Amino acid sequence: MAAQTLDQVVNLCKRRGFIFPGSEIYGGLQGTFDYGPLGVELKNNLKRLWWQHNVYERDDMEGVDTSILMNKYVWKYSGHEDTFVDPLVDCKTCKGRFRADKLNECQCLLHPKLKPGECEGQLTEPRAFNMMFKTQVGPVADDESFAYLRPETAQGMFVNFSNVLVSTNRKLPFGIAQIGKSFRNEITPRNFIFRVREFEQMEIEYFVTPGVDEQVHEDFIKDHVDWWVNVVGLSRENLDMYEVPAKDLAHYSKRTVDLMYKYPIGWEELEGIANRTDFDLGSHSKDQSKLGLTAKVIENEHSTEKLTYFDHVTNKHLVPFVIEPSAGVDRGVLAALCEAYTEEKLENGETRVVLKLKPALAPIKVAVLPLKKNEPRIVELAKSIKNTLLAKGDMRAVYDETAAIGKLYRRQDEVGTPFCITVDFQSLDDATVTVRDRDTMGQIRLPIADLYGYVRERI
Amino acid sequence: MAAQTLDQVVNLCKRRGFIFPGSEIYGGLQGTFDYGPLGVELKNNLKRLWWQHNVYERDDMEGVDTSILMNKYVWKYSGHEDTFVDPLVDCKTCKGRFRADKLNECQCLLHPKLKPGECEGQLTEPRAFNMMFKTQVGPVADDESFAYLRPETAQGMFVNFSNVLVSTNRKLPFGIAQIGKSFRNEITPRNFIFRVREFEQMEIEYFVTPGVDEQVHEDFIKDHVDWWVNVVGLSRENLDMYEVPAKDLAHYSKRTVDLMYKYPIGWEELEGIANRTDFDLGSHSKDQSKLGLTAKVIENEHSTEKLTYFDHVTNKHLVPFVIEPSAGVDRGVLAALCEAYTEEKLENGETRVVLKLKPALAPIKVAVLPLKKNEPRIVELAKSIKNTLLAKGDMRAVYDETAAIGKLYRRQDEVGTPFCITVDFQSLDDATVTVRDRDTMGQIRLPIADLYGYVRERI
Repeated sequence: MAAQTLDQVVNLCKRRGFIFPGSEIYGGLQGTFDYGPLGVELKNNLKRLWWQHNVYERDDMEGVDTSILMNKYVWKYSGHEDTFVDPLVDCKTCKGRFRADKLNECQCLLHPKLKPGECEGQLTEPRAFNMMFKTQVGPVADDESFAYLRPETAQGMFVNFSNVLVSTNRKLPFGIAQIGKSFRNEITPRNFIFRVREFEQMEIEYFVTPGVDEQVHEDFIKDHVDWWVNVVGLSRENLDMYEVPAKDLAHYSKRTVDLMYKYPIGWEELEGIANRTDFDLGSHSKDQSKLGLTAKVIENEHSTEKLTYFDHVTNKHLVPFVIEPSAGVDRGVLAALCEAYTEEKLENGETRVVLKLKPALAPIKVAVLPLKKNEPRIVELAKSIKNTLLAKGDMRAVYDETAAIGKLYRRQDEVGTPFCITVDFQSLDDATVTVRDRDTMGQIRLPIADLYGYVRERI
Repeated sequence: MAAQTLDQVVNLCKRRGFIFPGSEIYGGLQGTFDYGPLGVELKNNLKRLWWQHNVYERDDMEGVDTSILMNKYVWKYSGHEDTFVDPLVDCKTCKGRFRADKLNECQCLLHPKLKPGECEGQLTEPRAFNMMFKTQVGPVADDESFAYLRPETAQGMFVNFSNVLVSTNRKLPFGIAQIGKSFRNEITPRNFIFRVREFEQMEIEYFVTPGVDEQVHEDFIKDHVDWWVNVVGLSRENLDMYEVPAKDLAHYSKRTVDLMYKYPIGWEELEGIANRTDFDLGSHSKDQSKLGLTAKVIENEHSTEKLTYFDHVTNKHLVPFVIEPSAGVDRGVLAALCEAYTEEKLENGETRVVLKLKPALAPIKVAVLPLKKNEPRIVELAKSIKNTLLAKGDMRAVYDETAAIGKLYRRQDEVGTPFCITVDFQSLDDATVTVRDRDTMGQIRLPIADLYGYVRERI
């Protein structure tokens, strides 16, 4: 089971505090969203699991966290200044503005009700609209003192290639991993947190000796599909591997495979895994002509470094090839939510909404509930259990007494809490409680002393 | 012991991969730094410990993660558009540019060798330079379509006050916590990661009924001082509480206490803890005249919400007061590094550098070292121990065989690794290893099977 429409998820997210529209009290800011109390936990859990798998469990990976603001030359030589553009046309008569590559489907960007050609005016030649956000840096506003907000975290890893290599003394193959915000001035943000102007990425740049790149590429595809399925909990049948056709590849890409997820809006990209050859390190190097690059790069007049690797076997400097798995954090969150969203018919005819998130992803791990809120001894014991769990400091645990027990269960089901602990009259006698499983709704009785271990083991 | 100069720390950070200058291969971008392989772990550990203490261990706190790009009206009504400024003057003769409030100490911002008055030219009247970064949003570049990069995370919590309140059904008092990037176009970034243009904050907005604000303020000051000392490991004598004098307080602040840390550059602010009264929620509300605000706010013509709380005891709507503990992540990282940095004279006359970080903060938790790298059985066993630790997935563990054991120990001391595990000949016989303590350099022998538990318990 999974969400049938995006609205089901959007509504739940707003109502229960997963995700709110950004700057909502001022009418919003298109393409921005704020993660609420439950959303921030879900997102942080996803990021933590990714880091565990890709950094902690491997011995060939280094993490970094680089700046969003970068020197403008980074984007000149990465190619983004020239090619990270959408083509726009203006109508000379009505002054409407349209995407040149989507004239048939799109609306005017200035006056949203207008379609291209409606006024029968003449359209201008297409001009390039760069999707990078630009800002002035420093106290002097001139043509030179600007920077872009990074449109991808990747470049922060490429420009630090030598810094990482030297400080860690790595040998090929090794990778650099990063999680962080990126920004793209999308012309038409849409589909909730799927296409937004501010978003987060989980990227790896994995450096290899040319020749082993194809096998490493295959390995990452398999490993990451397995991660989305086994760790995040996406169904294998909702994932597809899209082989990007040669004609659609960027000129430097040898092969790109997109992992597609079946969102309620259709199959869309969740992660791209590309073989980028020696394009990136070559692009950011000085003295490129001496490097024997296979990729076509523009001449670099500003870099102070050769981003090469000295191979002790051949006694030669080489420019490593790069395999890049690049996933969207927000797209991962959305996929996890869509996959987990379930409406179940119960025996009594009612419907329950339950988020069947993997326990490791669930925002709240445990809810402690008193069977009767007007029985002080039960309330007191329930609160003391909650306090004991809080003191552990490693998970979100909540106490709730603001409704009858059935309604409290539904509330926790809807936000994916894997375990509800209920304190009842028997608890006062024998120091046991019931632990209810979110998915099966089955209950077992456990000694209070065993609770933390029981939950810990399952998250 | 602590670092005597900032350079000691800066050099270690660059050499061992904690922190690099941003965009270094292109000559840098002033006021930006990139966290390297060890720095990202240290920073993430600090953030995690803060979140555990301030969110997980409390039952009156909700986390959020809001956008960096926010609607421009947020900054109009927060007061930042008008007051988040530095005064600049220009020299009419040499065209130099200077900070008007620091004419005696500062250099020309355009030609760094020039001091004000050196050319004896006449200075202009001061003009306001706003420190917020501005950018165009959307495909149409006009005077209306801009946004600022947030200069603080705080406003993302204020504008979501009602969203959080409604979705979580909270009662006063409660708080909202956030960790995230902020941006300030500092005229003169300086002192490594202390004053930068892109930085990270850990902020809490804690909402209380007016009247209990002073006590809650006191409680947070004490609690957060204790946290920096007990959890982060700063010496109590290197922390000072600076009571901001009434004449220096912002007009809405009832009281502000700055926690100052004794960096090698002098006493500087690490965290500010302010009583902001009802200024923030009042500023972002519509119908302000009906709210009985105590703070002076500018008239809000754009907000769609009243950011009030319905008090079921008095049956009245009220605007909560806000206590705001606001700490710098990078300043916390720098304080932890400065505090931990130690140079020790050893018995043999050599000096060792050791980072005496709290184990929970240390980037690498365990290094597994073979006593002899040309003894295959030892190497094999050491690697298998490392692999077992990696498979746990919850800490950074490394294997190193690239030097003699004494040098390997020094390497790990310098980056703060609390435990070095050495595999020797005896290990092959009895499945035990030595575990060396970073600070005492004392060694104990432990069964391999007990290693993970031993380390886990101590981090």
